[in-house]
Amino acid sequence: MDQSMLSPTIGTPFDQAMMQRCLQLACQGMGKTSPNPLVGAVVVQNGKIVGEGYHPSFGEPHAEVFALREAGEKAQGATLYVNLEPCNHYGRTPPCSEAVIQAGIAKVIMGMADPNKTASGGKERLEEAGISVVVGVEEKACLELNAGFIQRVLYQRPYGIFKYAMTLDGKIATTIGHSAWVTDIPARKRVYQERAQCDAVIVGGNTIRQDNPYLTTHQLTSHNPLRIIMTQGLNLSPQARIFQTEEASTLVLTETENLAVKKQLEKQGVEVYQLSPLTPKTVMKYLYERGLAKVLWECGGNLGAKAIKEGAVQQIFAFIAPKIIGGVAAPSPVGDLEFKQMTEALILEETSWEQLGNDYLLKGKIASSFWEKRLN
Amino acid sequence: MDQSMLSPTIGTPFDQAMMQRCLQLACQGMGKTSPNPLVGAVVVQNGKIVGEGYHPSFGEPHAEVFALREAGEKAQGATLYVNLEPCNHYGRTPPCSEAVIQAGIAKVIMGMADPNKTASGGKERLEEAGISVVVGVEEKACLELNAGFIQRVLYQRPYGIFKYAMTLDGKIATTIGHSAWVTDIPARKRVYQERAQCDAVIVGGNTIRQDNPYLTTHQLTSHNPLRIIMTQGLNLSPQARIFQTEEASTLVLTETENLAVKKQLEKQGVEVYQLSPLTPKTVMKYLYERGLAKVLWECGGNLGAKAIKEGAVQQIFAFIAPKIIGGVAAPSPVGDLEFKQMTEALILEETSWEQLGNDYLLKGKIASSFWEKRLN
Repeated sequence: MDQSMLSPTIGTPFDQAMMQRCLQLACQGMGKTSPNPLVGAVVVQNGKIVGEGYHPSFGEPHAEVFALREAGEKAQGATLYVNLEPCNHYGRTPPCSEAVIQAGIAKVIMGMADPNKTASGGKERLEEAGISVVVGVEEKACLELNAGFIQRVLYQRPYGIFKYAMTLDGKIATTIGHSAWVTDIPARKRVYQERAQCDAVIVGGNTIRQDNPYLTTHQLTSHNPLRIIMTQGLNLSPQARIFQTEEASTLVLTETENLAVKKQLEKQGVEVYQLSPLTPKTVMKYLYERGLAKVLWECGGNLGAKAIKEGAVQQIFAFIAPKIIGGVAAPSPVGDLEFKQMTEALILEETSWEQLGNDYLLKGKIASSFWEKRLN
Repeated sequence: MDQSMLSPTIGTPFDQAMMQRCLQLACQGMGKTSPNPLVGAVVVQNGKIVGEGYHPSFGEPHAEVFALREAGEKAQGATLYVNLEPCNHYGRTPPCSEAVIQAGIAKVIMGMADPNKTASGGKERLEEAGISVVVGVEEKACLELNAGFIQRVLYQRPYGIFKYAMTLDGKIATTIGHSAWVTDIPARKRVYQERAQCDAVIVGGNTIRQDNPYLTTHQLTSHNPLRIIMTQGLNLSPQARIFQTEEASTLVLTETENLAVKKQLEKQGVEVYQLSPLTPKTVMKYLYERGLAKVLWECGGNLGAKAIKEGAVQQIFAFIAPKIIGGVAAPSPVGDLEFKQMTEALILEETSWEQLGNDYLLKGKIASSFWEKRLN
C-alpha cells in the first residue's frame, strides 16, 4: 500500500480513540484468527460505549456480532466502530453487514476497506440500507495490525518479517559462533511479544545445532507460534529444546527422507513434512496453503539472505546492542545478496526505532517493487 | 569520570542558561585552541549580560580576559560565568584568577574544576579574596566539550573517537569494496561537523587507495583537521585527493623510508614523518607531544580494531543507514579483537542516538577500565 495515499486525519479525536479501542480488542485474538483478520468492534450510543467485541479465533463469530449482542436494544440509532470493513458474504458465518442493518445501527466508522474482493461490498450494502459510512479512521494502524491478512489476500502468501540481533559492529555471534546473548532482557522480551503476534517462526538447522533455542513466547502470552525448522537432511538431535512439544508445536520441513530421526521426532509429537525443493519460496507457498498469515524468520544470515532474495521477507526487525565484539570472520546478519555496488543496496522504507533497555530496535519495510516479482 | 557522581541540578535555570551561553562562545575556538581548552565567559550585572568572551586560539588571551575587558566598570560586584575553573598560574598569560579579583567580581560560577593540577587552585584563590564560588553548573556538557583537553591532562594522550558508517546489516562496503555511499547527505554533513571539532582525522593507506577521500569539513567551517595517514611503506599515489594541501594540511606517518614518494609529497606541501613501530599507540603518543587534543579515527576495520586494542579509542560514532547490502565477505566496521565469547564484548556506556535524515547515529563510550591500562 502506498502510505502517501493515506489521509492521516480522518475522524474526530473521539473517533480515533474508539478505533484504537477496536484495535486493542482485536489484539485479544492475536495468533488465533488466521487466516481470518484481527477485528475488534465497539458500539457507541450518545458518546458512551454500549457494546464491545472481537473475533476470538478462526471459526468463531465475527467481532461485530459480539459487540451488537452486548449492545442489544441500545444498538438502535448507535454508531458502530470496527477496524475492518464488515463482511458481506456467507462464509462460515452470515454476513456482518446484514447483522449491522438489522440491529438498527445508524452510522458505521471503519478503519480500512476489506482488501478481499469476495468479502467486500459491506460498505455499499450498508449505504444502500441508509446507514452513513466513514472509512479510514486510524487507517495506518489498522493496515499494520492486519499486515498478514492483507498479504494473504493480495499476494496469496504470508507476511514475512526477518528478525536479527547484532552488535553495534554488525555481528550476530563471535568468530567461534558464540551468541548468548547479543541483546539484554528487555529486547529479548520484545522478541517474545513479536512471536506472540506471528503464526510461525522459521529457523534453519544450523540455528538449532548452534543455539539450541526454545523459540517460544516464554509464557508472555498463551499463544505460541508454530516453530518451523528448514533442514535439508534432518541431521538434528531429537534432544534439541525445539523438539519438546508440550508448550509449543514444531514442524520440520525436510527435503530428503531420514526415516530414523523422523520416526523418533514424530513419537515426540513433532510434525515432519517433506518439501522439495526446500526453499523460502516453496515454504511460504506451503504455509499460505496451511492458512498462516504472519511468519517471523529468526534464522541466520544465509537462510535470511535466501528468504530476502525469494521475496519471503517484507519487513526487517534489526535489534542493535551497543557493544563491540569485532572479528573479520564473525558472522553478519545477512548473507550474499549478490550486490556489487553500494547503490544496489535494499533501501528500507517507513523506518522507525525503539529503545529497549540499553538496546535498540530499528524496523523497516522492503519496497513491494523488490519482493512482488520474486514471490512466484 | 564517573557520571553517577555528577549532580545534574546545580544552579538556577538562569545560571544554566548563562553556562550554555559560555559553551556556545567557547565553541568559536573549536579546533584552534589545542592544547588549551575551549573556554567561554560571561559577565552578568543585575541579570543582564555586560561582557562576553572566549579563548580564540592557542597563544591568545583567555576567555575571562575578553569578557572582563568588555564589561569594564560594570564588572564591579558582577557575577562571572565560565565553563572551566579560571587558571591560577603564570603560563603564556598571567593567571585569570588575579584578573577576576582585580575587576571586582563578586561571584564566580564555573562549569567544572580544572583537571590540570598546575593550572588549578583558581577556586581557592578566588575564595581567599572573598569571592563566592559555585562549581558544577551544566557540568556534563562542560566535560563533554573539553573531553580532548581533559584526556590530555589526565592521560597525556589525545581523546580518540572511532567513526564508521555501516548498513543495517553491519557492512561498510560491498564484497568488492564499493562504499559510496553508505549514508546520505545529512549524516555525511554530521561527519564534517565532527571533523571541525577535532584536531586531526586518521586513516590507513587502504582507505586512501580504495575511497580516495578528501577528509575535509567541505567548507562547513573555516577549520580543517590535520589529515593523517598511517602507512607502513608509503605505497600511495601522490595524485590522491588527500595530498592536495591548499585547503587542509596532511601528515603522512610511515614506518619505512620511501624517498621517491616522500620527496614528491613534500613538494606538494605534505609533511612526512617516520615513526617506528607505527602503531595506534605510538601515533597517539606522538600526537600528544604535538599538542593535539581530539582525533577522529576514520579508518577501516583492521586499523580500527588495532586502535581499540591499544587504548586509542574512547568513543564510538556508528552511523547506521537503513539499507541491506548483504555479503559474507563484505567488510565489517571492526576487525579482530580476539574475543571468543559474546560476554567478552566491549559494552558501550552513556549511549545516545540521533536521527539524520533517513540515517541514524548511535554514539557510546568505551569504559576507561578497558583503555586506561592499554595506553602505555
